[in-house]
Formats: sequence, structure tokens, C-alpha cells
Amino acid sequence: MSFTIEFEPIGIRLLCEEPLSISEAARRAGIGLRSECGGKAVCGKCLVHMEPGAAGISYVSSPETSHIKAKQFAEGWRLACRTILKSDAKVFIPPTSQIENQIVQTEGVASFFQAHSPIQCLSIDISPPSLEKQQADFERISTTLERQLNIKGIWAGLPALRSLRMVLRQGNWQGTIALNDREIIAAFTEKNIQPLGLAVDVGTTKLACYLVNLETGQTLATSGIMNPQIVFGEDVMSRLEKVMVSSENADRLQRNVIESINQIASTLCETQSVTVDRLLAFCIVGNTAMHHLLLNLPVRPLALAPFIPALSSSLEVKADSLGLHAAPGAVVYLPPPIAGFVGSDHLAFLLACQFGEDTRIRLGIDIGTNSEIALQMNDRIVSCSTASGPAFEGAHIRHGMRAAVGAIAHVCIDENLHPHCDVIGHGLPMGICGSGILDAIAEMRRTNIINSRGRIDPQAAGVMIEQNSIPAYILAAGNNGRHDIVVAQQDIDQILMAKGAIRAGIEILMDHFHITTQDIEDVTIAGAFGSYLDPFNAVRIGLLPEIPLDHIHTVGNAAGTGARMILASTECRIQAEALARKIDYLELTVVPGFNRYFAKGIRLPSPQT
Amino acid sequence: MSFTIEFEPIGIRLLCEEPLSISEAARRAGIGLRSECGGKAVCGKCLVHMEPGAAGISYVSSPETSHIKAKQFAEGWRLACRTILKSDAKVFIPPTSQIENQIVQTEGVASFFQAHSPIQCLSIDISPPSLEKQQADFERISTTLERQLNIKGIWAGLPALRSLRMVLRQGNWQGTIALNDREIIAAFTEKNIQPLGLAVDVGTTKLACYLVNLETGQTLATSGIMNPQIVFGEDVMSRLEKVMVSSENADRLQRNVIESINQIASTLCETQSVTVDRLLAFCIVGNTAMHHLLLNLPVRPLALAPFIPALSSSLEVKADSLGLHAAPGAVVYLPPPIAGFVGSDHLAFLLACQFGEDTRIRLGIDIGTNSEIALQMNDRIVSCSTASGPAFEGAHIRHGMRAAVGAIAHVCIDENLHPHCDVIGHGLPMGICGSGILDAIAEMRRTNIINSRGRIDPQAAGVMIEQNSIPAYILAAGNNGRHDIVVAQQDIDQILMAKGAIRAGIEILMDHFHITTQDIEDVTIAGAFGSYLDPFNAVRIGLLPEIPLDHIHTVGNAAGTGARMILASTECRIQAEALARKIDYLELTVVPGFNRYFAKGIRLPSPQT
Repeated sequence: MSFTIEFEPIGIRLLCEEPLSISEAARRAGIGLRSECGGKAVCGKCLVHMEPGAAGISYVSSPETSHIKAKQFAEGWRLACRTILKSDAKVFIPPTSQIENQIVQTEGVASFFQAHSPIQCLSIDISPPSLEKQQADFERISTTLERQLNIKGIWAGLPALRSLRMVLRQGNWQGTIALNDREIIAAFTEKNIQPLGLAVDVGTTKLACYLVNLETGQTLATSGIMNPQIVFGEDVMSRLEKVMVSSENADRLQRNVIESINQIASTLCETQSVTVDRLLAFCIVGNTAMHHLLLNLPVRPLALAPFIPALSSSLEVKADSLGLHAAPGAVVYLPPPIAGFVGSDHLAFLLACQFGEDTRIRLGIDIGTNSEIALQMNDRIVSCSTASGPAFEGAHIRHGMRAAVGAIAHVCIDENLHPHCDVIGHGLPMGICGSGILDAIAEMRRTNIINSRGRIDPQAAGVMIEQNSIPAYILAAGNNGRHDIVVAQQDIDQILMAKGAIRAGIEILMDHFHITTQDIEDVTIAGAFGSYLDPFNAVRIGLLPEIPLDHIHTVGNAAGTGARMILASTECRIQAEALARKIDYLELTVVPGFNRYFAKGIRLPSPQT
Repeated sequence: MSFTIEFEPIGIRLLCEEPLSISEAARRAGIGLRSECGGKAVCGKCLVHMEPGAAGISYVSSPETSHIKAKQFAEGWRLACRTILKSDAKVFIPPTSQIENQIVQTEGVASFFQAHSPIQCLSIDISPPSLEKQQADFERISTTLERQLNIKGIWAGLPALRSLRMVLRQGNWQGTIALNDREIIAAFTEKNIQPLGLAVDVGTTKLACYLVNLETGQTLATSGIMNPQIVFGEDVMSRLEKVMVSSENADRLQRNVIESINQIASTLCETQSVTVDRLLAFCIVGNTAMHHLLLNLPVRPLALAPFIPALSSSLEVKADSLGLHAAPGAVVYLPPPIAGFVGSDHLAFLLACQFGEDTRIRLGIDIGTNSEIALQMNDRIVSCSTASGPAFEGAHIRHGMRAAVGAIAHVCIDENLHPHCDVIGHGLPMGICGSGILDAIAEMRRTNIINSRGRIDPQAAGVMIEQNSIPAYILAAGNNGRHDIVVAQQDIDQILMAKGAIRAGIEILMDHFHITTQDIEDVTIAGAFGSYLDPFNAVRIGLLPEIPLDHIHTVGNAAGTGARMILASTECRIQAEALARKIDYLELTVVPGFNRYFAKGIRLPSPQT
């Protein structure tokens, strides 16, 4: 009897030979799970989520139920210390149950832009009303502001109107009014306050939030957490399927992500000693599925061919209509999604990296479960999306994990075919992340441990033979009960499929524009994976064509940077919308000969000396 | 032992000598209360409301509780057949418990206007998407419409966007799109449908609703019910006080009136065989307190001196933000309230009666618990509000009732001092309404039964002497156990106070403009009471100055007519806003010598021959 436990979102898998508790399994996999009571089911901190109805057997004792409500239990929440597994299972560990926070990508590319928001905070001082001067509250404020700014037509929506009274009377007829263009969106009893906004990048796996001063454009605080929707499925499609079967799920997924944004927003505001009602504006980017789930737009046409989004325009909605906690009239701007599989995060990435601003031939790649690729030439940009799968993020790789502490991020193999590994956090290796496995494959190819089709030479040093005569290369030998960390044949196959899909996208775009590798003047790679990626090895395994390395730039979460720019600058917003209009979407599945491109993309180039 | 039961909203009071059930009391007062089970507490139809904690003793048997939830019971709801009263009590009978509907004023003055709404319904026929043409749903519709109308910039809010998918796919890519200017506010699977809207006049006592074809301006159906907020207090002030003590009450009062509008809207739509999602626009008018309660705006500054409203501008909000059932993007327009005690209903009345459109010197009076008076001269209009009290609506008058079936609406007294009464519905008299008592007083003055200060001559024929030597004039002698219907000295005092307040307002406005009675070219009187009012007697009792009778016009619910005009015509809306800017509010309580005007206003003129 043997079975596998997969830990999400960290992406580590553990092979087990006997029934064991989730706590024990986590310990063996090197994952820090909270356990203040030492596994006595007293503290309730080791809460984990399992797919409802999973085969793993849960031993429910009364202490467990005392920490979990019946509703939670039915939804699949369990105490790790009380749940015994004896067959394949997937365990989701929420951030609150983890000792160590994961590294969540929130640093972005540095882009220069001039903050210029339609939102401004104005200090006011007005005279109180009397029986002789019975002017209404709103008119008293609006005429004051109109005089002060020498403009006309100031107005306010209902939620802001409801809040004026308290502010005027508690603030003794002075304070600050926040305007969005000519709309009063909030009132504060203090004077001289700064306008704040929140930029959000909703990824399938991660949520990154940035608290921004709308007047200066400065990022005041940054935070990221895992996308809580992950309990409804790791990938986009399984979440869309959940929503398609029940509109309650749609509500739940929306609430889920909104609540998380509220939570981060509150934490970020605390760092500035303010409350969330100081948030005046939001800019939210994300792939089109995340965009639709956030807005509770219908997803069926998006999930099924021909994959039609509800809209591909920008949208401005009131924060309160989405349940976001913010100033009464706070506004949420969502940049245009480009197509069903190319979202506003791609647009934000291209904006942050100044696509559309010159006429160079440029390639922009955001690597993820779905990878988006853009090729710019003259005044045109064509984008496509490839289902590269989660291999680069460590999933479906035996010892794969995300780019978190404990992950092997870089590998080189010496002349004796001995591997040398760099581990994130410099501790013992727990697994291998995307950039590490990519390095490993490049090095294995260079040292001829694998051939051009990725087959491992079973005779090579460091290779062991597993069940069914399948070879695996040992990256780090286990000790003290820890298993070996290997690159198995199946892992290489997964990575070659992934890189084949991306490379096919690149080649199709190049052919679409009738250009060759030599024409490409710049390559920008974004995404959590991208920031650890070694361009040299990306070319060596053929993920990228043979482009001079100094033309290849890796950026971190450029989408987050783009979101911040759009949040704090009207010009950037206009620019983003213009950029969106420039981008044509190319549906790869209808390109003739796609399979040929893909088959070619899978092959590994010959090693160079 | 004797005590009085007051039945609301009909306004009838019953003097009782012994404990009795509410059902029995209603029967004696001639009020048709539902009782399908014959008083066995089985049908649950005789539900009535009593002030929570009222002294009247309720005999709760288990059958009663089976028809009333604990929450309802705590709020004061009772079964009339199971509730025994033995001291003074006020009983509110909801329309659902009444056999006979009250006459609710929904006819208005006929005004000519050209319907011209920014809302239009357009039939569309679009081609379905494919993998080759993956245009998003919204863009597919908007580009079709932009081509069709030769315009740009069509957009949609989130609720409308959410509804497009179903419509497109269920309607087989054809149907109707409703536009509000350039905003898509709804989509329907049928073609060639008419745009519908609802005009609402929210009175303190009554809600009047009008279903209007926005293309033709035609009123398709009309309905009115009592304002359900009446259970929180008959007059504006007691409702505002309820809201000031608890924000839950604010929510409850808002929900109350919104639910009632939803209910009427649904009924009105049924008459046209459509559902409420066909409603694309609303125009809601009302006094400023009703306006604030409907919008859940803060009311404390409105309720306490110096009586400041939250705003005095027009407001446009989405129907869904108020909880109104309608098309996804349906919009609610609320014309500007003029001041704390002069609301948008006054504005709508003046609009419907073409105030501001000529330079005649005109007087406009809307008589109610608060009466609004406007005086127009040259290009100026000044409005004021007088607390005339509810006497004209039959309250605080011993046998007073509203202008409903059974009310004495007109009285004349012959040379033998015998009264002759006209009863609404031509049945037996149950009480006397405002116009009836006004007639009675005019006739009593003409026949010298009362003097100029309103004192009844105890020697006059038809006068009986009650307790404490107070005289009363018998209008209709009781028989078969029915009591006499009289005009008591206290009733006359009440009416003189009310008419004194209104007359004072008129005189102050005239002095404000330095004009005399002879200058007034036109008087328009609105309100439920107004439509039964005899102008001749209004002048005879001095409610109005001595204006030639052919200059006096009574109109019904002109505010409702104004609301319909504003709903269906952009021009009328612009005109209403321009009219609002023309109107100056005059606060009577700060006018020097107000008490003098009032004292003078109370006096009855000498009878003419």
C-alpha cells in the first residue's frame, strides 16, 4: 500500500506507505504547520482543507468538532492533527495555519510615471446653518468647493450623501472632502489628509495588494496572500466548473476573494495608522476568469468554446457594490480584459514594461499555468495564451513546489555529473521549483544525461532506476528519514510539454509577423517563476529561441506595477485603454499546423559547448 | 368608564362604554374588516396593528399566535377578533385587512406634455460568436447598437452586464436592448417592446403609483395604497423621532416604503401582463421627510431646528441600490426637495400646474398636515410651509374621517337651520371629512349658528349641549344604535387653527411681495382634500382671501401628475430643476409678527348675504 499526499498551495507531494495524520505528513514533508497544543486537538490552529468527499479518512473526535462548525466540516475543513489519511489526498493549508509565510511575489518592475489621479482631498471650513440660512448640507459643501476650485457641477452619490451629516457636525463644520473628479466620494473630520488607493493583482494562485498614495504615486505598503479560491480548485477551469454548477458557488467565490482583499486592505491601512474608509480608489487586474469571478459575471460562455468573455472593456464600479470596505463613494477601476484567456493582468504587465511606446520588435511573456505571450512590431501587438500547465509552478512534478523557502531554485551539474543546488532560504531542500527544474534539465542536457527528446540515460552517473525501469536523476540525496529529491522522467516530460506550448506560441507569433529570431530586439519575462528564471537556461532548453541574453529581461510581478500606475495616474489609465485597443488576440487552437509547432517546441536543442 | 378607539388610516373614532373586541368595534364604526372565519381566529385575515405597549389589553389565545409570528407580535400586530380593548387605543387597519379599499387620490390634473425620455428600447439581431470571432458579449451588442444608432460610447453597469449572457443565448442572439442615453440598462429576449416606468408620489399618508409608457407618456395603470410607515406614526415628526432613536428603525421605515412600492409596481405590471423587470425608470416625489426616509438619509438635522435637509438637489440612483425591483440598470430620479418642509411633491405640483411659465401673480396651495403655499410674481416664486395640522384630513375632529366612502363631504344648512349632507358613496354617514366640516362651518357662520370667533350659539336650533356646557351642532342624527354625527365646539376650534395657519402663510407671502388680494390672478389648490373643497366656502370661512371664485381651481393629486411628466420627459425634468432654482423658501417662524398674522387668520369673516 502506497499513496501520495499533495500539499497545496506550496505544491509539495509526499509518498506515504502507511496511514498517518496530516500533521505527521506535513512534518515529514518539511512544512511548518501550526500546532500550539502539540497535536492534542485543543488549539484548533492546524485547520486544513480537503476536497469535500475526498477518500482520505477523517477520524473525527469531539475535540475536532469543537473547533470546526458543522458547516465548515461539511465544506471539507479538518484539524490536521485529528485527520488520518490512508489513500491519495490533496490537502490545502491556508496561510493562517502555516508557521512560515510563503514568498508571495509582490515586487514589481520599477516603472517611472507621474502620479495624477482624478481623486483629490480638499480641506474645507464652512459656516454652520441657521434658521435664517437653511441651506442643505450637500449644497453648503458643494458651493464651498465650487467657489474654492472655481468649477461647477459638484455632485454626490447616495452613500457619500449619507455620510456628510456626521462629518459636518462632528467635525465642527471643518474637515476634508474627497473628490473623484466632481463627485464627492468621502468626507473626513480631519484636515490635510492624503488620498489613498489600493492596487490589486488577483492571480489564480496569489493576491498581491499595494497601498498607494494617490497624490504622489508612492507605494506605502505591500502585501500578498494566496488566493482563497484555491480551495475550489487549483486551476481556473475547475473553479469555473464549480461556478457553472451552482450560482451559490459563484457568490461564494466572489465573497471569498473580496473578503481577502478587505483583509489585506485593512492590514495595509493599519501600517499607516488609518482605517479602510480612507481608501478612495481601487485598480484591480487579473486574468479574465479571475475578473469575471470577482465581478460575479456569467462564466459559462468563458469556460466553453468559443470562450467568450462577458466584456472586454474597462469597467468602473462602486466599491460598495462589490462588498469592498472603503470610503462611501470609493470607485473600483478594472482595466479591459483582452480576451477569454488574456486578461487585464497581461495588459498591466505590457503597460508597466512600456509596450506600445516604441516601435521595437519585442516579446513579452508572462509564465504561469496559462502563459500569455505578446509580440510587438511597429504599431501592432498580438497576444496569445498557451495552456502551459502548472509544471513551471512546481505542480505535477514529483518533488515540485512553488518558489518558496526550501525550494531548489538553481542547479548546476559538474564534470563528474554531481549536482549543486541553490535552495531558497539556504536551508535543507524540500523540493524543487520551476526555475530549479528548468536549470536541472538544461544542465542534464548539457552533460548528456538526457537526449534531445528528454530521455534520461539510465547508465549515467547519479541516475537511479525506479519501478517499471523508469530512470530518475538524484538532485539531493535524502537523509534523516527525508526522501531523495529527484528529477524523474515524468517530470522532464511535463516540463517539455509546458515549454513546448510556450515555444509554439512564440513561433506562431513570429510567423504571424513574418519575422525570425534575429529580428527580436527585446524579451521581457514576468511572473513569479520569471523572477527566478535563468535566461541562459531558458534558451538552452529551448523555452526561448536563441536570443542574445542581454536582450532578455526578467521582471517580477509587472502586472502589479501596471495596476499601481493605472490606479494613480489618469494618463496611465488612458494609455492602458489605448494599449488594449492595439492588442489583437490570436486564438492558437485555430492556427493551422498548431500541433506541428507544439511537437517542434517540445524538443531540446543540442547542447552548445 | 368610557374610552375612545381611533381607527387609522380611515380616521374614524368610536366612543365605547364597555370592553369589546377590535372586530366588534370596527363593525360598530361601520368599517369593513375581513373575517372569513367569522371571528374564530382561524383565517388570520383580520390582522391589525397597535402601538407596541399600548394600554389596550390583548387577549392572546393560541390560535392568535399561530397566525402571528413572535416578531410581528412584538411589533404590535394583533388579530382583531382576539384583541379586547378597554381603554383609549389607536388601531391601524392595513389595506390587506380591509374589505373595501379606501379612495386613494390618484387622479391628477391633466397637463399637456410631450413624452421624451432618454430611455429607449431597441430591437437587435446579432451574429453569434465563434472561435474565429471571439468578440465579448458586451462588445458584440455595443458595436451593433453604435452602428444602428450612429453613436459612440455605449456602456453598461455591472448588473446589466450580468444579464446580457442569458438574454443573448436564450433569445437566440436577438431581442431588445434598453438604453438610458448611452447606458445599456436591460436586455430582453422579446423584440419590439415598450419602455415602461413608474411615477411615485410618496405622501405621509398615501403612496400613489402610476405605470407610464415612457415612449408615449401614456399612463397605463394607476394604484394607491396607504403609506405603510403609518404604523410608526401618523405624522412626519413622530416617524423622524422613531428613526432618530434607532438606525434599525431607519432601515425598517425605508424597507417598508420600498416594499410597498415593489408591491404596487408588481400589481400595476400585471395589468399589462409584464413583470417588474420591465420597469426601466422611476420618478419619486414626496415631502422632504419622506424623501429622506426613502433614501435612508440622516434625518436628525431635518427634525431639529434649524431643520436642514441632507440635500436640496435632484438625485439619480440605481433602483437596485434602494431595493426596488426593476430592470438591472433601472434608474430612479428624485427631483430636488426645496427645503426641510417643502418637498419635491410641491415642486411636482407647481410643475404640473405650469408655475414659472408665465408672469401672472399666482397662488398655489397644497393642503395637508403640512400645507405648502407658493406665491408666484414676475419671475419669482416664494414657497412656505405651515403646520396646518391634520384637521382638514379629519383627524382631531370628533367625527372626522378622511375623504373615504361614508364621509360627509358637503353640507348646507337651510333656513330652519336643518343641515343637508352629501355622503361619499351615498350611503349612511359614518363621519365627516375636511371639505364637509369646512362647508358646515361656512354654513353655520352664514346662519349665525357661530360667531366670528367660531363660538356656537347654544340657543340655536340643532345645537345640543354636552358635558361642561360645551355646545355641538348635530349634522346627522344617529339611529339603530349609531351615534349622532356632530360638529363640536372643539372641532371648530381645530379647523380655525388649521385655516388660520394657512391664511397666515398666504398673507405673509402677499406682504412679502407687497401685493393685495386684488392682484392675485389665479389660485390652484391641490391635495386629496383640495379635490373635494368648495372654493366658495373656502373663501366664506376665510381660508382664502376674497378672490373671485372663477380664479380658484382645485386639482387632485397634481404632484403625481408632475412626477409622471418628469418621468417621461427630459424637458419636464430640466424644467423642474429650473423651477426649483426659481423657488425661494421662506421660513415662517422667523417672520416678524407671525403670531399676529395667525391670530388674524383664525377669525371668521362676516357672512355675506
